Amino acid sequence: MELIRSVLIDIDGVLCIGDAPLPGSLEAMSLLRASGAGIRLVTNTTRKTRADIVRQLAAMGFEVAPHEVITGAGAARKLLEARGLRPYLLIHPGLMPDFAGLATDTPNAVVIGDAAEGFSYQALNTAFRILIDQPGAPLIALANNRYFREASGLSLDAGPFVAALEYATGVRAEITGKPAEAIYRTALDALGSTPAESVMIGDDIESDIAGAQRAGLRAVLVRTGKYRPSDEHHPACRPDAIVDDFLRAVVDVIRPALAARAQDPPGNEAAE
Amino acid sequence: MELIRSVLIDIDGVLCIGDAPLPGSLEAMSLLRASGAGIRLVTNTTRKTRADIVRQLAAMGFEVAPHEVITGAGAARKLLEARGLRPYLLIHPGLMPDFAGLATDTPNAVVIGDAAEGFSYQALNTAFRILIDQPGAPLIALANNRYFREASGLSLDAGPFVAALEYATGVRAEITGKPAEAIYRTALDALGSTPAESVMIGDDIESDIAGAQRAGLRAVLVRTGKYRPSDEHHPACRPDAIVDDFLRAVVDVIRPALAARAQDPPGNEAAE
Repeated sequence: MELIRSVLIDIDGVLCIGDAPLPGSLEAMSLLRASGAGIRLVTNTTRKTRADIVRQLAAMGFEVAPHEVITGAGAARKLLEARGLRPYLLIHPGLMPDFAGLATDTPNAVVIGDAAEGFSYQALNTAFRILIDQPGAPLIALANNRYFREASGLSLDAGPFVAALEYATGVRAEITGKPAEAIYRTALDALGSTPAESVMIGDDIESDIAGAQRAGLRAVLVRTGKYRPSDEHHPACRPDAIVDDFLRAVVDVIRPALAARAQDPPGNEAAE
Repeated sequence: MELIRSVLIDIDGVLCIGDAPLPGSLEAMSLLRASGAGIRLVTNTTRKTRADIVRQLAAMGFEVAPHEVITGAGAARKLLEARGLRPYLLIHPGLMPDFAGLATDTPNAVVIGDAAEGFSYQALNTAFRILIDQPGAPLIALANNRYFREASGLSLDAGPFVAALEYATGVRAEITGKPAEAIYRTALDALGSTPAESVMIGDDIESDIAGAQRAGLRAVLVRTGKYRPSDEHHPACRPDAIVDDFLRAVVDVIRPALAARAQDPPGNEAAE
């Protein structure tokens, strides 16, 4: 097995829960920075812009540059621009700034994220009609997560609404967030690293672990966030390691396998 | 092939479009009544009670008794009562009277129909939490149609929202409306007829034709309502006959094959 040069990290459930850093995660991030590993934060958060995420992390004590945060929204925007598409944006209001400046008149594509209360019948029907009336119009999904945990309990994420539009139209969504291989490739391209010399750390057995492994990375599951004990016996996915939290991942798994120790950290010099 | 004793008929798109009878359909119904065939109307309309449907048909000139109308809502109510379930009703307000009198406190089941504007994020999340928090709580769907045509264009039906909750929870919905075999069996039981001596007439290649054939009936597709030319080359379903409309179905297909002519029409004497 190759040594590790780059580390991809999920944010919510690994570094923090909401606005509170998880115990040991600030120390773990400092250790990782000092080790010289290439770092990217790869998140399916679809209610906040990249700038919001950087600010929120800074308030908790994590110093992260904007180009170190990889989101499904960023990937979707690149895809829209590359194909000259005019999207109908069925996304959370908080994410709108990440799509500012794109033409959205007479839409010929649908972008769907975690729109929350924005998932009205009216809005879903508008998206449906674009897809059914214009054969070939793509359905671009920032994520297909089933649900997430909030203070009041589990709540529906974007995935069920992606499934609804797929069922109604017969159109298969293009996922730009995790677990799509593309987002992992984007992160590694920015670091100049290969999948074999990279590892993903996450709390979601499907998006983080299975997705990263399909992209050729190793993957470490942490027992924080949305982790459930049944994840350790998942029928289709076996993490390369399972540890209690991000600190244990860094100390017990990453640091012993690091190829670069306080040398040139890959990719950290270049903004995207 | 056995002779025909009983005829099941879809309403919208076969007898009428909205409040307007289709050309020849009133005459066709008179001919069918006079022939002595057993008759049931089998509909996935989920915005109106059975009483509403009878009134709407009467206003167009169709004389139909309430017990002759078979709906997914009726089947769902029987199922809830048989299992002592307390439903969360994610259905159209117009359908609520069909569920009047059922206990709905601390729900342990979800009933989903075409709730239209009632499909808010909040309502879907409430349904989701019942299913995810109470393993074994059933998801009962009155229908799983993908979309329907209204004046402003195609619109999302119940099916996409059923798919959303199935994706979110991993629970498989029990469909009580077409194309479920149960609703066809319910109609035939009421008529005392076997599938082999019965025929379904409908405009929906999946719900009406494939569903009835799976239940063992013959099925006639009409070229009205939601019919599309591509239905005649459906990869998985071949109707027993395809005719221009309900009148042609009665004159060209049903009447020549009728076993009972102006004798005791099966099932018409007994209310359910």
